[in-house]
Amino acid sequence: MSGRLTIALDAMGGDHAPDMVVAGAELARERHPGVNYLVFGDENRIAPLLAKWPALRDITTVVHTPDAVAADAKPSVALRGGRNSSMRRAIDAVADGRAAVVVSAGNTGALMAMGKMVLKTLPGIDRPAIASFFPTLRGESVMLDLGANLECDANNLVQFAVMGAAFARSVLGLELPTVGLLNVGSEEQKGHEAIREAAARLRVLDLPLRFDGFIEGNDIGTGKVDVVVTDGFTGNVALKTAEGTAKFFSELLQRTFRSSILAKIGYLLARPAFIKLKARTDPRRYNGAMFLGLRGICVKSHGGTDEIGFANAICVAYDLAVQGFNERVKEEMPHLRPAPGPGSEAVAV
Amino acid sequence: MSGRLTIALDAMGGDHAPDMVVAGAELARERHPGVNYLVFGDENRIAPLLAKWPALRDITTVVHTPDAVAADAKPSVALRGGRNSSMRRAIDAVADGRAAVVVSAGNTGALMAMGKMVLKTLPGIDRPAIASFFPTLRGESVMLDLGANLECDANNLVQFAVMGAAFARSVLGLELPTVGLLNVGSEEQKGHEAIREAAARLRVLDLPLRFDGFIEGNDIGTGKVDVVVTDGFTGNVALKTAEGTAKFFSELLQRTFRSSILAKIGYLLARPAFIKLKARTDPRRYNGAMFLGLRGICVKSHGGTDEIGFANAICVAYDLAVQGFNERVKEEMPHLRPAPGPGSEAVAV
Repeated sequence: MSGRLTIALDAMGGDHAPDMVVAGAELARERHPGVNYLVFGDENRIAPLLAKWPALRDITTVVHTPDAVAADAKPSVALRGGRNSSMRRAIDAVADGRAAVVVSAGNTGALMAMGKMVLKTLPGIDRPAIASFFPTLRGESVMLDLGANLECDANNLVQFAVMGAAFARSVLGLELPTVGLLNVGSEEQKGHEAIREAAARLRVLDLPLRFDGFIEGNDIGTGKVDVVVTDGFTGNVALKTAEGTAKFFSELLQRTFRSSILAKIGYLLARPAFIKLKARTDPRRYNGAMFLGLRGICVKSHGGTDEIGFANAICVAYDLAVQGFNERVKEEMPHLRPAPGPGSEAVAV
Repeated sequence: MSGRLTIALDAMGGDHAPDMVVAGAELARERHPGVNYLVFGDENRIAPLLAKWPALRDITTVVHTPDAVAADAKPSVALRGGRNSSMRRAIDAVADGRAAVVVSAGNTGALMAMGKMVLKTLPGIDRPAIASFFPTLRGESVMLDLGANLECDANNLVQFAVMGAAFARSVLGLELPTVGLLNVGSEEQKGHEAIREAAARLRVLDLPLRFDGFIEGNDIGTGKVDVVVTDGFTGNVALKTAEGTAKFFSELLQRTFRSSILAKIGYLLARPAFIKLKARTDPRRYNGAMFLGLRGICVKSHGGTDEIGFANAICVAYDLAVQGFNERVKEEMPHLRPAPGPGSEAVAV
């Protein structure tokens, strides 16, 4: 089994764990057969699940762990008391090289705290960020930070931009991703100091990305840029607001189709088209928040997801590993000083 | 005409001014006939428009102004050079008591800067806020601040909560509005210090509102609370993100209905139901951002709106004046110290 990619799974995180973790691994195995799994959790519960899928069982090693991190545990408590938890042991596997990536649907704060402590940040990255991708009118975009850092300075935002662009190249397959800083207006003088300083530095950056300046909230859904960069407070609110608005529309749509006999018949006729629409915006398709900036790839699945969503999170982790996301970031971080303008001297930051 | 409410209109602000301003006033007149208008702008352009509607002309006084604030003028420039602009003169009319409220579809930054300088803030209010209301699954909610203050301390947030609740009682007709602070999670320890301190103070407030603690972005669209309180940066991004997501869905919906013959027929059958859905979420229905906290009511219409949207902004201004919004805020501000808990002494802030 040497030469194959190994993915560590926290089998005990998430509302429907460990069932959906094992079933998700089976779905992911069908898409990427050349992978081994290292599964951490309660052996007595995992073994009967694996028995259902012999092909998965053959490429899976189960490591029994006595503990699991509670969904509502404080990160500090999980850090101190969770040394033998499935989550911690799965992260350890990445730290000591037994696995290339780790996927967990457990407690986000605990996963971030353990990830930072065990894996440490990449050279040149001050703080890791949480990133996620979502559907837009133009295709797919990625946004970060989504909540790891409530307050960010210009340095953090510039580093997020570089990591977001590397993510867009690795997972979305874009050659020259466009990057925008989320702000309250598109004019240069808008916003607070950190965001204006970050913009000034991104304008002169010499890296495989195109900085498009400031974007506004309404540009997120249209896909004006491939990478939306913001602080963790704003990003978290923006992503959840978009989710809430989507829910609002889907509920209104259902009410509309139920509101008259003609509307109901209309729905039956348009149903195949709506099934496609639903597939395109299925949240499970966009499951998987990536912790970018750690010396090891760590993907957080939604806690409430099912096996389809969990399989998608595994596939994102797979792409990040196979595309060498961390290697790209490591290569690009030394280029983070402003490039010399035409006719001017190089300026060190 | 004494005893009638007078509304000052900036006839020169907005993409389709002055036409949509005058036509909007006519629509608003039909809804609220007992109003006089004081219209500021280019008399040569306004007079022919008024000639179309004799009933409106009879209740309107036109004040000629030589200047207009450009849509892209910096607020500081508009403040210095705009003394004879239609916007400034309309605000002056509220300051000297000739009008009860002012409505403008012009430059937001200039309107806020002039409003602050000319009208000043209400007693007890450190900074005015921009508020707007929007449709939710439960009905309608109001959110503030939407961009007047990019950074806010706990004091600002508490004052916004009181003003937002007074707005919900005045315009949405709610007796005991529920209030939530927008945050990255609902647990007490979540968020930055300003928001946690604001929450602690709102929990013990003795005013006609019910504080529901922290809410998240996805709670905005469901209408979990009547009043969403946040800083101007986050609020601006959240509102525009919701608008962008709505646009994303409406575009996908159109594509879906166009995607097959059956879907097209389905749309024709469901069309009457969709016309109702569209009316419910028509942005013109929610036109009008209120500058709350000034000693005078100032309503900002979207710059790109038409006469229907502008008429709605006038009607919001009307409600705020008739319902005595500012009097409510003035009454309630002195109660902004924490109420005594059971068995404890009153604590001054």
